[in-house]
Amino acid sequence: MGEKHRVVILGGGFGGLAAAQKLKRAPVEITLIDRRNFHLFQPLLYQVATGSLSPGEIAAPIRGVLSRQKNTSVLLGEAVDVDPQAKRAILRDGAAFEYDSLIVATGTHTSYYGNDSWREWAPSLKSVEEATAIRHKILYAFERAERAATPEEAGAWLTFVIVGAGATGLELSGALAEIARETLRHDFRKIDPQKARIILMEGAPRVLGPFPEDLSVKAEKLVSRLGVEVLKSVMVTNIDARGVTFKRGDSSEVLAAKTVLWAGGVTATPFGRRLAERTKSESDRSGRIKVNRDLTVPNFPDIFIIGDLAHAVDEKGTPLPGVAQVAMQGGAYAAKVIRARLEGKKELPPFHYFNKGEMAVIGRAAAVANIFGIHVSGLLAWLMWVFIHLIYIVEFQSRVQVFVQWGFEYFTFSRGARLITGQAATDSVDQAASMYNKSNSS
Amino acid sequence: MGEKHRVVILGGGFGGLAAAQKLKRAPVEITLIDRRNFHLFQPLLYQVATGSLSPGEIAAPIRGVLSRQKNTSVLLGEAVDVDPQAKRAILRDGAAFEYDSLIVATGTHTSYYGNDSWREWAPSLKSVEEATAIRHKILYAFERAERAATPEEAGAWLTFVIVGAGATGLELSGALAEIARETLRHDFRKIDPQKARIILMEGAPRVLGPFPEDLSVKAEKLVSRLGVEVLKSVMVTNIDARGVTFKRGDSSEVLAAKTVLWAGGVTATPFGRRLAERTKSESDRSGRIKVNRDLTVPNFPDIFIIGDLAHAVDEKGTPLPGVAQVAMQGGAYAAKVIRARLEGKKELPPFHYFNKGEMAVIGRAAAVANIFGIHVSGLLAWLMWVFIHLIYIVEFQSRVQVFVQWGFEYFTFSRGARLITGQAATDSVDQAASMYNKSNSS
Repeated sequence: MGEKHRVVILGGGFGGLAAAQKLKRAPVEITLIDRRNFHLFQPLLYQVATGSLSPGEIAAPIRGVLSRQKNTSVLLGEAVDVDPQAKRAILRDGAAFEYDSLIVATGTHTSYYGNDSWREWAPSLKSVEEATAIRHKILYAFERAERAATPEEAGAWLTFVIVGAGATGLELSGALAEIARETLRHDFRKIDPQKARIILMEGAPRVLGPFPEDLSVKAEKLVSRLGVEVLKSVMVTNIDARGVTFKRGDSSEVLAAKTVLWAGGVTATPFGRRLAERTKSESDRSGRIKVNRDLTVPNFPDIFIIGDLAHAVDEKGTPLPGVAQVAMQGGAYAAKVIRARLEGKKELPPFHYFNKGEMAVIGRAAAVANIFGIHVSGLLAWLMWVFIHLIYIVEFQSRVQVFVQWGFEYFTFSRGARLITGQAATDSVDQAASMYNKSNSS
Repeated sequence: MGEKHRVVILGGGFGGLAAAQKLKRAPVEITLIDRRNFHLFQPLLYQVATGSLSPGEIAAPIRGVLSRQKNTSVLLGEAVDVDPQAKRAILRDGAAFEYDSLIVATGTHTSYYGNDSWREWAPSLKSVEEATAIRHKILYAFERAERAATPEEAGAWLTFVIVGAGATGLELSGALAEIARETLRHDFRKIDPQKARIILMEGAPRVLGPFPEDLSVKAEKLVSRLGVEVLKSVMVTNIDARGVTFKRGDSSEVLAAKTVLWAGGVTATPFGRRLAERTKSESDRSGRIKVNRDLTVPNFPDIFIIGDLAHAVDEKGTPLPGVAQVAMQGGAYAAKVIRARLEGKKELPPFHYFNKGEMAVIGRAAAVANIFGIHVSGLLAWLMWVFIHLIYIVEFQSRVQVFVQWGFEYFTFSRGARLITGQAATDSVDQAASMYNKSNSS
């Protein structure tokens, strides 16, 4: 036992899981540690938030995925520290795990750009809990609008603001538009859900910043067609109980909105900051740790950082984006380096990210994609998106199920998972409003 | 608007929904009020608790179910009081709804027989939140056992006690046995999930008390075959962090168990007690309000109580059981009485419960059923159970999906919804233990 090379992997997301799987046949002893017992298919999390899918449908138990991989133990635990000299990863409960190689794949947190009080009013879409909280917030807003005393109050409950027009912001606003215009259209007696305002705000002068410009134009057209109002070059200056305050040019405006969703940037987790401290590493503005071209931490060749927590650069020095593909390829690369070292091979060439393309989905039969430089939009891009996402869902079972569900919803506009659950729902309507603010901020 | 007969229905469970649907073509104006925005298919809740189904799969938004029924408004709100003289139902936020006829279908709470401190350690299976808390507790126990320092500690985490051997207790213990023996069998490295002890405790001398005796015998045989230890004629005297204390004959024993599930009795909700006070009605030992043979409250012919909250009796004076069938038939009957009164017809014959039979499922291909007096057990009973439950699930969509999922699981023993979610899971392993105790008690 003790003679084998010990690999500790922190995090069971796309990167950590790929690393573990690529070490399947290596003569190593792997311990994969995650705070959660499941791997989450994050790209579909917005569908949980908008009531199309249930959490179980986009998650797979890590233990189940790796159960046949005999050289791997899976543990539930949260890493809080690393001692790079003693080569130990330390968990919150004090347990320490010695490693010969450490692969850190713990990801990032949502950043409110220093305005942490906004978190209370504008949840982001990182975890299953946040996704169900957002679902709750959206469905509850229509319920409150139906019972509102004045048209102004109803209006505020029927105004939805999404901050940030990246892929997640577009997905959320498109899905929200479909909920209001199609799914709920016959469900209320006093309000008309079709009159709901859905406003997508972006600081940059165009949506989908990292995409080629023609696809940004196309994406804005597609989402506007669904009834979403797109405000570009605006700066959000405050978010509170009343709504959103923002600057457009020189004027400051206030928009009364009871539902604000945050699709903004990322920042380091406390563990990420700790690791940077311990290894005396440099971080970028988003708190991502700058790694060598082989994804190791400078001066610590036995510590790899992969996925969102790593600030890695390509041949031209351009930082790699925080997407699933980079994480998976990074995990596979780290595994390859470890295997090569064990076999006494020379250093491998640096990590090369092979970009298969990028996509963003806006609604049913509406998406944009950039595949090997070919720009596609509309139904074809959407079909490609559906196909690729189904392929990648880890468990076969989830694949079958998501497929059945989507097929059904495509034809009926219904949404199967429209539950308001959690603490808030069990309390009265009035208490609820304050409750989910609490749960979102935790 | 104001001239129509106003029917207020409190509760959107089996009873409330049936009442609303049977009044679809009546010249009335219906307001259905529920604390939750969804109708829950409670008989399958144990499958959520044991990780086979996701909450969204056994729930349907009430609004969606009734969206085409133009004479009905659905509102999210919690009834806290009734003024039977002024004919008004009052919600927690102070809103009052005037009625001409009131149908109360708000159900009951779990009873710990006066030992409310047990609730903290032994959650029951009433709501979606409790079901996911139970799922969390079960899966987390295996995780903790894998990391236990001593064999004793591992043993306590691998000991599961279910208190109460009615249908719910049998379903839970059978499903737990399958999780331990099949689903998780390859997933751990230090512990053997197949060695988990699952103990079903019952105060009465046999399981499934309300069923014919031969089916009780059969059910015990089936659940024992799955590896469940059945303890009959035992009295639980305490439940705490260490486990369960119980009396068998004259001796008192303590069983170290970290996971205890409560499948015991029911009691009145605060609203139920309030209603009894306001109408000066009698309640039975379980807090159910004694109603007339036409399901109205004595002296208040305009208030109907249906479902679990009603203590109704049949021709022979035997109380009707608290099952979905009684609630649905009660709802339909109340609707019929209201229609008859509006049409000026004479009083209808009293409510007659038509018992189509009773079933309890124990595991895959294992169930017992009593259909019109014919006793069936094993695979045939199980197939009947699957068929009947699929038929009754309200939404077509859920039906397709549950069917696909079950088919898949039947052949693979996998469970799709093995997520540990909620507050506890986001915290460290150690904090978690105390966290879910809190969340269960809320």
